Amino acid sequence: MSLPPPNLIANARKAMAVLAHRDTPFIFNEWYVAAFGNEVTRQLLSRTLLGKRVVLYRSESGQAVALEDRCAHRSYPLSRGHLEGDVLVCGYHGFRYDTQGELINVPSQHNCPRGIGVREYPLFEQGLLLWIWLGDPALLGTRQPPRLDWIEMPDWECSSGYFHHPGNYVSMHENLMDLTHLSFLHASTIGTPDYASAPYELDLKEGHYKLMRNVVPTTLSPVWGKTTGLDGVNTAARIATSEFLSPALHQVSVTFYDSALVPDNRPEFHIRTAHILTPKTQGSLHYFIVHGRDFALDDKAIGEFMHEQLFAAFNEDVEGLGALESVIQEANEDSYEISVASDAPAIAMRRYLKKRADAEADEKLIATDRP
Amino acid sequence: MSLPPPNLIANARKAMAVLAHRDTPFIFNEWYVAAFGNEVTRQLLSRTLLGKRVVLYRSESGQAVALEDRCAHRSYPLSRGHLEGDVLVCGYHGFRYDTQGELINVPSQHNCPRGIGVREYPLFEQGLLLWIWLGDPALLGTRQPPRLDWIEMPDWECSSGYFHHPGNYVSMHENLMDLTHLSFLHASTIGTPDYASAPYELDLKEGHYKLMRNVVPTTLSPVWGKTTGLDGVNTAARIATSEFLSPALHQVSVTFYDSALVPDNRPEFHIRTAHILTPKTQGSLHYFIVHGRDFALDDKAIGEFMHEQLFAAFNEDVEGLGALESVIQEANEDSYEISVASDAPAIAMRRYLKKRADAEADEKLIATDRP
Amino acid sequence: MSLPPPNLIANARKAMAVLAHRDTPFIFNEWYVAAFGNEVTRQLLSRTLLGKRVVLYRSESGQAVALEDRCAHRSYPLSRGHLEGDVLVCGYHGFRYDTQGELINVPSQHNCPRGIGVREYPLFEQGLLLWIWLGDPALLGTRQPPRLDWIEMPDWECSSGYFHHPGNYVSMHENLMDLTHLSFLHASTIGTPDYASAPYELDLKEGHYKLMRNVVPTTLSPVWGKTTGLDGVNTAARIATSEFLSPALHQVSVTFYDSALVPDNRPEFHIRTAHILTPKTQGSLHYFIVHGRDFALDDKAIGEFMHEQLFAAFNEDVEGLGALESVIQEANEDSYEISVASDAPAIAMRRYLKKRADAEADEKLIATDRP
Repeated sequence: MSLPPPNLIANARKAMAVLAHRDTPFIFNEWYVAAFGNEVTRQLLSRTLLGKRVVLYRSESGQAVALEDRCAHRSYPLSRGHLEGDVLVCGYHGFRYDTQGELINVPSQHNCPRGIGVREYPLFEQGLLLWIWLGDPALLGTRQPPRLDWIEMPDWECSSGYFHHPGNYVSMHENLMDLTHLSFLHASTIGTPDYASAPYELDLKEGHYKLMRNVVPTTLSPVWGKTTGLDGVNTAARIATSEFLSPALHQVSVTFYDSALVPDNRPEFHIRTAHILTPKTQGSLHYFIVHGRDFALDDKAIGEFMHEQLFAAFNEDVEGLGALESVIQEANEDSYEISVASDAPAIAMRRYLKKRADAEADEKLIATDRP
Repeated sequence: MSLPPPNLIANARKAMAVLAHRDTPFIFNEWYVAAFGNEVTRQLLSRTLLGKRVVLYRSESGQAVALEDRCAHRSYPLSRGHLEGDVLVCGYHGFRYDTQGELINVPSQHNCPRGIGVREYPLFEQGLLLWIWLGDPALLGTRQPPRLDWIEMPDWECSSGYFHHPGNYVSMHENLMDLTHLSFLHASTIGTPDYASAPYELDLKEGHYKLMRNVVPTTLSPVWGKTTGLDGVNTAARIATSEFLSPALHQVSVTFYDSALVPDNRPEFHIRTAHILTPKTQGSLHYFIVHGRDFALDDKAIGEFMHEQLFAAFNEDVEGLGALESVIQEANEDSYEISVASDAPAIAMRRYLKKRADAEADEKLIATDRP
Repeated sequence: MSLPPPNLIANARKAMAVLAHRDTPFIFNEWYVAAFGNEVTRQLLSRTLLGKRVVLYRSESGQAVALEDRCAHRSYPLSRGHLEGDVLVCGYHGFRYDTQGELINVPSQHNCPRGIGVREYPLFEQGLLLWIWLGDPALLGTRQPPRLDWIEMPDWECSSGYFHHPGNYVSMHENLMDLTHLSFLHASTIGTPDYASAPYELDLKEGHYKLMRNVVPTTLSPVWGKTTGLDGVNTAARIATSEFLSPALHQVSVTFYDSALVPDNRPEFHIRTAHILTPKTQGSLHYFIVHGRDFALDDKAIGEFMHEQLFAAFNEDVEGLGALESVIQEANEDSYEISVASDAPAIAMRRYLKKRADAEADEKLIATDRP
């Protein structure tokens, strides 16, 4: 064919105009994960989050601290300095900052100028995760970091990993909302051919987009089959829920069982994966992953097998979406996307992200613009 | 000196304004070589041509297929998918396309939306070469791919090669139109000192620019001398014709003989080189080369020697014009070029390329702008 | 803290508006060092200076020559050509230039067009250094290259080095004007903790900014202590003068002695360092260094030890300011700098650089704009 009919393209472009994409400005007024807690130590850690340079460290009492990674004097990266107790000393001219980012000493003079400093970013540590507020300080209390109780539960076993992902966070959210890709992108790892066409239900609330897919009966790929004992069973069930919980977090919850057994008297196996997305730049992403299971808790071999298999699959996302990024970063006025029925939750989610970004732009609430 | 006089610079800039250069838009309504035919197989091949991503493969019957390398759904590179018979399956969500680029199946739903698809690019295979039409589909019949009969003739022996050239196609055409550079850029390979100052004749028709140079008497560089038996003969003749045949093709034809012998009773040796230029981006080029000779047809050693020597020389073009590219990509309003008499065919050619590009822009005939 | 008060930020930005920074246009009407003299030989040397491509070589008589590194014909880098005696032959089509940059031969034709050529840049060689004038030829006589007499004096021993510095020249000048950074950036090499807070005097004249710092009593870091014999003496004196001499040159002069001895009867040791800055691009710099001492003249081991220690320290500047560059190249309208008392000479110097750059822009005196 030459091209789809002009009205179809025109409609596609019109539809896209209200959806977030690679170049949509970041949403700052939200909690994001800055790091796994154990990455933040007495060594200064430099990390770019939503385009902002941040330096992270722990005070002597163990409290995590996040400051703007740029000395107020001549913009030197504070992460190249050192700690003296809780005080961060700039590595260039020795300006000293306390844990609130306030300038408390200038070595070349007796009196320290007052009211000078760098931004301190509020943090919230939960389990493995260190959340950060990069938004308007005045709106700090208006949102809470999402709570992932299972990460801390004793009857759940967790495993975690990190990818420096060469793609944008909107595409990754969309990837996660539309798991029909399991049959293709993950054909050789976690997917099965019947996944893409399985029936699903939607529950789309503003800011919380949920899709529940029932793959029954099915066979399980080895990562699930071998670890649950359902390997080779052709009446297996795979009930998967994908949930967009915030711009920073997508959760996948899956239940496995043998559908040939009666509901009240069959073992059920649960897994959950927190896909934690913190944009670094418009085209790159800190991709933190925490995966948990409520079975084979003490079986280290199963834990390692599952981790290896899953992260091989997540690496397929990273490679595939990295390749996608190279296409969409060249997008121009001729580009368009065609959506189908299974895109409904992703479309709703992208409309929401766009709305949030627009709202911040309109109200000029982005923290850096506010004194 | 400080600088040439202002009026000279002003005139030079004025003259350049009507000539194609590095940043002139591509000419789409033309046949270009997409690949050597043997590069296109049942493995998906991704290639950027005139800034467009194209995926190439062969159907089960052996027919070459070229489609836009971007799924209509979410822009995933189709070249990362796989073939099922003649059907190209996207590697992300499994959208299926036929060889015309028409979407024929969406795995997540029963009914496939109609009228959706990606662009199919017409192909024409001749001998070693696979030509592609990236232009306006409505203008497909208005131009023909240049015919290089000698590539297919049994009494010609051919050899081919490819460079991913780090320079623009206009500079390469100009390089080929002005072979006085043989005495300098190719001083140690195919050139001789007398080449630059040899007499020449011009035949400049709109869209077909021809220069015939008579280097007589001369000595031949080893690549020709050793292979024709004229090595060491100081009455050799080298009659070279450079022809711009299309934006995609320049042909060089040379006849060698001993000028001390009578015309009717002397052996003559012919070579031809097709310099096939397919812009990849404004600053890079797929540079395909086919070289043929009508002598020493069965002598494999001579064939290999000639190939090695010639491609060493073409590599000098690639390195030299790559260095040139780094200068001209920094060109600004202060830049200018001074032309001399031997630039006449190149100037005519660049004026023609500019005119073609302008015409496409004016008429908005560039295919991507037309539904 | 969130951020400094809005009026403080507003004032900081206002103050910065009149200061040179990374993106301030270059000052062309000034002498810069193009190379160490011994870098320029009969081999063509290509070097980008203030954004201009220059080719450097020596004539047969040993005279250094600097020409625009771009053939007037088709912009080929002349540095890829070769010398025939004093004549530079372009490596593309063999255009020949004399040492004044005048085109004297075009191989493809009998008559050479007149009045064509490339810019010749005036040079001045002094001691180790080859100075170049890239500015308006009409203003050549209005400024003199700074004279560094000690480089040529027999009772001084010199050592030199070069860094391709990944940062801008304004930041490097500022670094050199504010040596309070010795206590921090150079804490482990040439700095001591008391350096930053030592008393200083200023002498700020238009275009010549001088700061004299008296670090008395102090102890000397090994590079000075071990080489002067004052190692371990806790009554040492370190009297350091930092001088901005031109956009191209900053000089540091230091006197060491034992302050416990009477002035007339104590040995004094002097060192000088010429920090020679020639911008390459807005974000990179040719950083030439010449260091001299008037003691231990014949002690090769001391010379090598001092060179090694000093260049380790200069490398700290290169690394640190390279890291700084990556921050300030991302500067936007939200960025600001807060200055303190010890910044006075740097501020004066940056105001002067800005004024010079503005003057060139206003008067359109940049040489490239003048025929």
